[in-house]
Amino acid sequence: MKVSKMLGERFKQAPKDCIIDSHALMMRGGYMKYVGNGIYSLFTPTKRITTKIERIIREEMDRIDGQEVMFPVVMPATLWEESGRYTSIGSEMARFKDRGGNPMVLGMTHEEAAVHLARDTAKSYADFPFMIYQVQTKFRDEPRARGGLIRVREFTMKDAYSFHTSQADLEAYYERCHEAYERIFKRAGAKNVISVKSDSGMMGGSVSHEFMLLSEIGEDTLAICPACGYKANMEAADCLVKNEAGEIAPLTKVHTPNAKTIEEVVKFLGTSAKNLCKAVVYQKNEDDSYVIAFIRGDLEVNETKLRNHLGYEIHPATAITEESGIVAGFIGAIGLDSKIKVVWDRSLVGIENLVCGANETDYHFTGMNIARDIGAVEYVDVAKIYAGAVCPVCGKPVIEINKGIEVGNIFQLGTKYTKSMDMTYLDANGELQHPIMGCYGIGVGRLCASICQESHDKFGPIWPMSIAPWQVEVCNLRCDDETVNNTANALYEELLNKGVEVLYDDRNIRPGAMFADADLLGVPVRVVVSPKTCDKGVVEVSFRDKSFKGEFAIAEAADKIKEIVQTELAKYNI
Amino acid sequence: MKVSKMLGERFKQAPKDCIIDSHALMMRGGYMKYVGNGIYSLFTPTKRITTKIERIIREEMDRIDGQEVMFPVVMPATLWEESGRYTSIGSEMARFKDRGGNPMVLGMTHEEAAVHLARDTAKSYADFPFMIYQVQTKFRDEPRARGGLIRVREFTMKDAYSFHTSQADLEAYYERCHEAYERIFKRAGAKNVISVKSDSGMMGGSVSHEFMLLSEIGEDTLAICPACGYKANMEAADCLVKNEAGEIAPLTKVHTPNAKTIEEVVKFLGTSAKNLCKAVVYQKNEDDSYVIAFIRGDLEVNETKLRNHLGYEIHPATAITEESGIVAGFIGAIGLDSKIKVVWDRSLVGIENLVCGANETDYHFTGMNIARDIGAVEYVDVAKIYAGAVCPVCGKPVIEINKGIEVGNIFQLGTKYTKSMDMTYLDANGELQHPIMGCYGIGVGRLCASICQESHDKFGPIWPMSIAPWQVEVCNLRCDDETVNNTANALYEELLNKGVEVLYDDRNIRPGAMFADADLLGVPVRVVVSPKTCDKGVVEVSFRDKSFKGEFAIAEAADKIKEIVQTELAKYNI
Repeated sequence: MKVSKMLGERFKQAPKDCIIDSHALMMRGGYMKYVGNGIYSLFTPTKRITTKIERIIREEMDRIDGQEVMFPVVMPATLWEESGRYTSIGSEMARFKDRGGNPMVLGMTHEEAAVHLARDTAKSYADFPFMIYQVQTKFRDEPRARGGLIRVREFTMKDAYSFHTSQADLEAYYERCHEAYERIFKRAGAKNVISVKSDSGMMGGSVSHEFMLLSEIGEDTLAICPACGYKANMEAADCLVKNEAGEIAPLTKVHTPNAKTIEEVVKFLGTSAKNLCKAVVYQKNEDDSYVIAFIRGDLEVNETKLRNHLGYEIHPATAITEESGIVAGFIGAIGLDSKIKVVWDRSLVGIENLVCGANETDYHFTGMNIARDIGAVEYVDVAKIYAGAVCPVCGKPVIEINKGIEVGNIFQLGTKYTKSMDMTYLDANGELQHPIMGCYGIGVGRLCASICQESHDKFGPIWPMSIAPWQVEVCNLRCDDETVNNTANALYEELLNKGVEVLYDDRNIRPGAMFADADLLGVPVRVVVSPKTCDKGVVEVSFRDKSFKGEFAIAEAADKIKEIVQTELAKYNI
Repeated sequence: MKVSKMLGERFKQAPKDCIIDSHALMMRGGYMKYVGNGIYSLFTPTKRITTKIERIIREEMDRIDGQEVMFPVVMPATLWEESGRYTSIGSEMARFKDRGGNPMVLGMTHEEAAVHLARDTAKSYADFPFMIYQVQTKFRDEPRARGGLIRVREFTMKDAYSFHTSQADLEAYYERCHEAYERIFKRAGAKNVISVKSDSGMMGGSVSHEFMLLSEIGEDTLAICPACGYKANMEAADCLVKNEAGEIAPLTKVHTPNAKTIEEVVKFLGTSAKNLCKAVVYQKNEDDSYVIAFIRGDLEVNETKLRNHLGYEIHPATAITEESGIVAGFIGAIGLDSKIKVVWDRSLVGIENLVCGANETDYHFTGMNIARDIGAVEYVDVAKIYAGAVCPVCGKPVIEINKGIEVGNIFQLGTKYTKSMDMTYLDANGELQHPIMGCYGIGVGRLCASICQESHDKFGPIWPMSIAPWQVEVCNLRCDDETVNNTANALYEELLNKGVEVLYDDRNIRPGAMFADADLLGVPVRVVVSPKTCDKGVVEVSFRDKSFKGEFAIAEAADKIKEIVQTELAKYNI
């Protein structure tokens, strides 16, 4: 492809809303164009990259016996009513009525469609296991689209669904899929992808993992134990806290004028935050009733863990009314209105002697002992794990906190969908059973943007050879010079004939502008043809990642370039 | 792939709603599953076929310098407001509001998105011409989805958009694209595809062609001249009528009791339908006002031609009220309420002496002469062309009428979109101009189903080698016989290793059932391994289309099979 003929413009200044490097570079490099909030059109370079990523994904899915199928983007609501998700999923799901007035949805995931496709055909245990997958457009009405292709509303996703007759079989397949995912990310050139235990959220099921590309700009927070290798999304990470036994003291109400925050109380009483019983107030989305989580003063509540424990949607309290009986800044469990739902975090276990609010302006209690002053309570884990926390597996207090971008996920779904949608098969004993499902997703565009985020310099992306839009870019520095022009043209044609994917910059522009564009296009191998190189009878070859620079004799250039492309490619053929 | 592991069921009885062979066979063969009206999930065989069709399309689009891009399925309504189509397109376009209350649409075509992608980047005449295309899901809320994948609501389409600085350049590119389309249909194995002049409909623009796969089940009616090769969609075909001069007669009102229809009037007056001035009544959609088309008594009105002439939507009159002044069965131009819109078809030119209604129950006029009795009128062509009509190009009265399925279309759009969306470039004189566009579509699923319709027998599809889901099917007739089993397994593996796409029926079922399934799967080359063939040291090889049957020695079978696959494939490599 010739740059002169390629649609798309490259420019110096990133659009103002680009706060992430990959977003800025992909806008500046002519990779995509904003159409609407979280909706982009993709120019040819991106389409070429995503096509290569999709090819890698398909090969790996086929390798683990996947059967490629195609589900619809638009589905009748009735299908989603069967699973119950038509009502349980909120405004992330786009809905409309067709011309006949029938409610329709845009697929944001395809468990329902997968069960629908399979349920009338897989009817005997002998038909199992199997896995079906598709690569298809999805629409999720994300409230906070951001970061270019990192978090969009419309995206291309590979989603796969496996069906099994036993939990053991699902687990074995889950493991194969886990390995396939590792291969996919390696082959696509993503260097720092790890899998972490995750929260299953709205998908249902129990065991699940997310594949996280480690990155400071990631929206997910991960707890990693360098000692034993434990890795979990913060939302799924157990927060273990060990409290040292202290002395029992009498419950005493003390005057703490204006001491509302943890810091103020700690300072006023000359104690440690670890001795405080902090109250965090939420409201139930449904009716705005209050939920108070009590947690050790130095810790934070993880909202997802709290939500999973409660089983309903909540939000941080937006208004604490006078009638609520809640005295903001001085909230405590003693004397609290019994209508308020209370949750006790496990971090409070074993503290004999706590400071807590007295539910009265400017007063706290000291010496609070939960067992003595409240009675038996249920402790649950709703605390956010933190750097230096105790590893829930090896017990060492060495947890590290990292940020990651979720580039894939795998779920053991169980029978949530096959039961609700009544998919059954006859087992070997002639009895009807519900198959056990797994599901496995990868966002193609997000993976592309994440790799750009991981592999770039300030001049542009550095695409791995396996997914680069082109393998080689030939820069003709003087198309008005006959020798240079003929040499560059001939090399371009020769490389094409040898099956190398070549981008050819044949424009009559300054070398600086041409190189800036080449940096933005991120093609791994660059070949420069100039009067200087022609005089020497060579072309100049360099790698975008700066790991190689050399000169090849013109006559041998095409063969040698093809060879280095093959060598680079081979690194990703694991 | 092993049939035992393949999801999808084949069965004998077509679902009741299948009135078209391809639909019935593709349902019976486990190719697809009904999800909702005009919405299907596709099983692996169909996905494999459509992937091959898409590959052929991409190769041919790339060959004519196309750049693959990707537009969104979901677009903000604002983009469609720019072109005016947000209001001009009716309920075929699905619309919804996103969580922010913004009106969104599902793309049914992507002219707006193409202009949006190109308009900020192609700003100088030197940037032209270029063509961008995508292969993407579309949703059109068809009122009459039918025939399986022939007419659906959700479908995969290749849509391409070219941009030019002159009409001549557009026309030259249009011709290249026409040739590319011919190659695509040939390579995909469609045998009877012709291009016909078409009506441009809602796309705007003037010149356009449809590629029609000739088929009795086609919804489009085509006029073809066997003498000169003229081909047009009936909606775009000029209807030429030659009337012989007759004698002028006086205008006479005659009593024609109960003679309302053409047949009744012809019989009552002992004349020919060619002497009648027939009135066909329509109503404007907007306000239900009346439109009457007068046409020669033996001809029919083509509604699309009439609509194009009027420039607004109409429907056949549903109710003729007493106040309308229209006397059904006795309508004529003389004395008609002047508020009623009248259209004169060209077929009435040159008839000196007509029979027409007298706008009075049970009365007609004879001897009506339009020039004398009505005055100067504008004649337009709104008549349906018919078998034996005069060819508008060569003038011979030999027009033939055929049915066709539209598998592709190409349009010269002109500046409709670039003007309304204000896309401009600087020409060589430094002046701002609007680029001239063409657009080019192919429905992938419809092409798949059309080829099935064209190439099948009563037992199943006969897929062309170039798009067949697999190239070879190995039928193991006795997987419980060790020799047969080992031979078939080994052949399957060997063929796979040689890069042949093999479906392997390894199920322990009766030969009759296995062959019935194989017929439904339509794989071009069938290899049978049975005790009989093993005794002879051979495998039996036959073509699905019955053009070949033979035996190959087991040791040579894989090589020979690969060879015949290559030979077959080469037939489509034009």
